[in-house]
Amino acid sequence: MMRVLDIPTTIQQVITFIKTSVSNAGFSRLVVAVSGGIDSATAAALAAAALGPESIYALLLPYKDWHAEAGGRSRQLLRQLQIPPAHIIELDIAPMVEAFLRSGNLGRYPAEEGKAGGDLERVRLGNIMARVRMIVLFDHSRKLTALVLGTENKTEHYLGYYTRFGDEASDIEPLRKLYKTEVYQLAEQLGLPKGILDAVPTAGLWPGQTDEGQFGFSYKAADEILYGLYEAGLSPQELVERGLDRQAIESVQGWMGQMAFKHHLPLIVPEPVVIQ
Amino acid sequence: MMRVLDIPTTIQQVITFIKTSVSNAGFSRLVVAVSGGIDSATAAALAAAALGPESIYALLLPYKDWHAEAGGRSRQLLRQLQIPPAHIIELDIAPMVEAFLRSGNLGRYPAEEGKAGGDLERVRLGNIMARVRMIVLFDHSRKLTALVLGTENKTEHYLGYYTRFGDEASDIEPLRKLYKTEVYQLAEQLGLPKGILDAVPTAGLWPGQTDEGQFGFSYKAADEILYGLYEAGLSPQELVERGLDRQAIESVQGWMGQMAFKHHLPLIVPEPVVIQ
Repeated sequence: MMRVLDIPTTIQQVITFIKTSVSNAGFSRLVVAVSGGIDSATAAALAAAALGPESIYALLLPYKDWHAEAGGRSRQLLRQLQIPPAHIIELDIAPMVEAFLRSGNLGRYPAEEGKAGGDLERVRLGNIMARVRMIVLFDHSRKLTALVLGTENKTEHYLGYYTRFGDEASDIEPLRKLYKTEVYQLAEQLGLPKGILDAVPTAGLWPGQTDEGQFGFSYKAADEILYGLYEAGLSPQELVERGLDRQAIESVQGWMGQMAFKHHLPLIVPEPVVIQ
Repeated sequence: MMRVLDIPTTIQQVITFIKTSVSNAGFSRLVVAVSGGIDSATAAALAAAALGPESIYALLLPYKDWHAEAGGRSRQLLRQLQIPPAHIIELDIAPMVEAFLRSGNLGRYPAEEGKAGGDLERVRLGNIMARVRMIVLFDHSRKLTALVLGTENKTEHYLGYYTRFGDEASDIEPLRKLYKTEVYQLAEQLGLPKGILDAVPTAGLWPGQTDEGQFGFSYKAADEILYGLYEAGLSPQELVERGLDRQAIESVQGWMGQMAFKHHLPLIVPEPVVIQ
């Protein structure tokens, strides 16, 4: 219950897309925020293959020491891709995030103080972190006359698993039409470091957070369900008949329903009535 | 060479749009950043008329004392609209902006030091300011279970005169289909304070900056040209024959060409070829 791609051909298509569209836009450089996860690693590898490693600038944007092992993975990846060391910019976003937290009217963030924190505080802190990274990334793109390389895959896009004006903000999206499990297939073919391939997917919203833990279903299940519903055009009942788990289908649909607003906003006023 | 709207009817249409669409989205409150300019004042007034002033939260987000007179105008407006004082939140964005400026790799911003500054530094600082305001605004919207009221008009949208992921970021856009000169007509009909009606339009990118000074053409000229080109479907030559200024037409077209990328990004990879 999943489409099959010819992975070497797909890699070549994405590389050609990056090369052509960056050049047509009048640019020659890309800047990418590398998180230590599979998506940004794969996007960076494809970009380096398309434009050459000397045309890529990589930002490592940790929050304090929340994900120190991710930084190690990122540096290993960038060495392997032969990104010039002068093009690797590491910058702790904590001073910027904390300026928002301190700004009075934002309320308290228990997660920030090492406590569990309520869901609302966690979501708000996660959004601020994603948006602070966006500002740093886009400022560097201006400074470097580069485009911002996006890293969103099709699964995250369908699930609305991103922060609007945060990690979804980009200039070019090489992975947007690939499901998460397909991104893994590209990454393996590209020979990315084992640490990247084996890392547990996390949006890094708080220490120990994992995507699949938050969803309540696996990326593999999500991809089969999303493919079945939206590309094979099957009903939930037909998916069940083909062996997919009913509860997982309901969970995916529930998650999408909750996040649908991200695809429908902003609401835009209709044209006024012209009298003359 | 400009369309004519029935202003009271248009006001009623926009109020109905706000009322209906906020309610349909499952919300009852709006949060808006009020700048002291005509667009945010008009949007706030329409929102207060649609939902009642007690449903509106207004953020005043100055950068230091760059636009002290704008704060005075905003407070006068909010009093007139009877927004409850507890719903007016004033917050200097300087500590947050400066956290970005200090973060090392962003380079120096001469404009920040009171010097003239190069164009690049001015643009970068302006973008950071607009995006910091976006973060504060969206964080408040989460905290208050409110939607973010956008303030972009049709002229700014056509001209690409906004910061992506900054002032253009919103949940609901009540003015997007109205030209700047039409927003003034609504504002007059709504009886907004004279200080707001008479204020020189500025994006507040640096002290003394004015929109029309930056464009090199007036909003009145821009509206006639944009309307002629895009709604009346006339050629530049036909606009000249109808008495519009050739040089202004070329300036508007030049500005739009430079900003067209904002409407075309992100570039998105095509669907992969499926072999099975």
